[in-house]
Amino acid sequence: MEDRQINEANDPAGKTYMPGLAIDAVVFGFHDRQLKVLLMQYKKSEIFALPGGFIHKDENLDTAAQRVVCQRTGLKDIYLEQFHVFGEIARFDPAPLKNIMMANGLVPGDDHWLLQRFISVGYYALVDFTKVTPMPDRIFDNCAWYAITEIPKLMQDHNQIIQKALESLRSDLDNKLVAFNLMPVEFTMNDLQTLYETILDKKLLRPAFQRKMLGLGAFERVAKKWTGGAHKAPYLYRFRK
Amino acid sequence: MEDRQINEANDPAGKTYMPGLAIDAVVFGFHDRQLKVLLMQYKKSEIFALPGGFIHKDENLDTAAQRVVCQRTGLKDIYLEQFHVFGEIARFDPAPLKNIMMANGLVPGDDHWLLQRFISVGYYALVDFTKVTPMPDRIFDNCAWYAITEIPKLMQDHNQIIQKALESLRSDLDNKLVAFNLMPVEFTMNDLQTLYETILDKKLLRPAFQRKMLGLGAFERVAKKWTGGAHKAPYLYRFRK
Repeated sequence: MEDRQINEANDPAGKTYMPGLAIDAVVFGFHDRQLKVLLMQYKKSEIFALPGGFIHKDENLDTAAQRVVCQRTGLKDIYLEQFHVFGEIARFDPAPLKNIMMANGLVPGDDHWLLQRFISVGYYALVDFTKVTPMPDRIFDNCAWYAITEIPKLMQDHNQIIQKALESLRSDLDNKLVAFNLMPVEFTMNDLQTLYETILDKKLLRPAFQRKMLGLGAFERVAKKWTGGAHKAPYLYRFRK
Repeated sequence: MEDRQINEANDPAGKTYMPGLAIDAVVFGFHDRQLKVLLMQYKKSEIFALPGGFIHKDENLDTAAQRVVCQRTGLKDIYLEQFHVFGEIARFDPAPLKNIMMANGLVPGDDHWLLQRFISVGYYALVDFTKVTPMPDRIFDNCAWYAITEIPKLMQDHNQIIQKALESLRSDLDNKLVAFNLMPVEFTMNDLQTLYETILDKKLLRPAFQRKMLGLGAFERVAKKWTGGAHKAPYLYRFRK
């Protein structure tokens, strides 16, 4: 129950958390040839935000990030990449959060721990879209997927955080070979190419792409995908562990 | 005077800083065909550490990093790259610091702000070795360059931090074209190749390297380097702003 920003019930003074430090998570999923991001909407408000949370004083930073993303997706052992720390003074604006708290029946003083300056560690998560159950809670009316091309105005600097996460994902695509985390366990080379093209926002040449991917030796062929006809059924691949 | 770890004079309770959050800086320089790192040695101890510091409550994170590195090098507007946050519980060990404080005549209680858990943001800096004046202070006996191949045992996880910084620098070499920050204003292609070979720890083919570098269009030719003889004087280049 360590929700983003507001959870008065268990730790009203935030004493169990590292002060002034938050986590924001950009959870990427891939569906219908679209790259999507999981967003929260605060109850009784039109305010959208990234899933996020805090770090317990006795908790590793990476563990906290796993916990935060698990709370919103129901998934464990997620592929997470820490990509940037957001530490500008300008990102600190307590007004929207204070309004949300008041709309939810709280009357926070200006010295409330949640209304102080926070520096936030950005993580991106790559998840299998089909396995996620977006989970709202008593603070958030809504937790849902939004296409990366249709992100609404978010609170604070969260739009910038998504942009930076996307840049990092693009740059990591080749170096770290992370994209398969966005696929189901088994996939065709065409599926993988569509994913790369969507993330990079450009067309790739099929022969060169397949030669490169298969040349990595990172994928193993499973079986032909059954398509009803005997001819030209594409092969299915899976990531070689 | 916002020194790393111990500065009792100006802010004994650390009230002006973001609590629990530090900066560690891996300052890279290049000299004598060696990649070097700036290290501090604590007074009255054999303990070595990275230069570091804290973030004022009214200060941007990146500004704090510039300040911390400026204090040790005398340089402003340094090329800095934020590369990783170190947030493991296991890195928290107050004993060495407490010993240092006591050796310097302080008697800190266990609740002293410096003896709590810190999460640290790692930055690497690329500087022109010839322009740096390593600056010790009243806490540090020594501030000096160490070849990356001859780093002593450092406090906490600072050896790991250097390793991670080096991996990030290697990965950034091509993507971000950062290496020229380690060179004097004017340099030959041979100088640049030696730098790349040192960072990557492998030999590169000269024609391919020069073709690639010059093909980037990022360098402009200045003049021939005067070597005493008229023949085969190499060209000098500078980074095109």
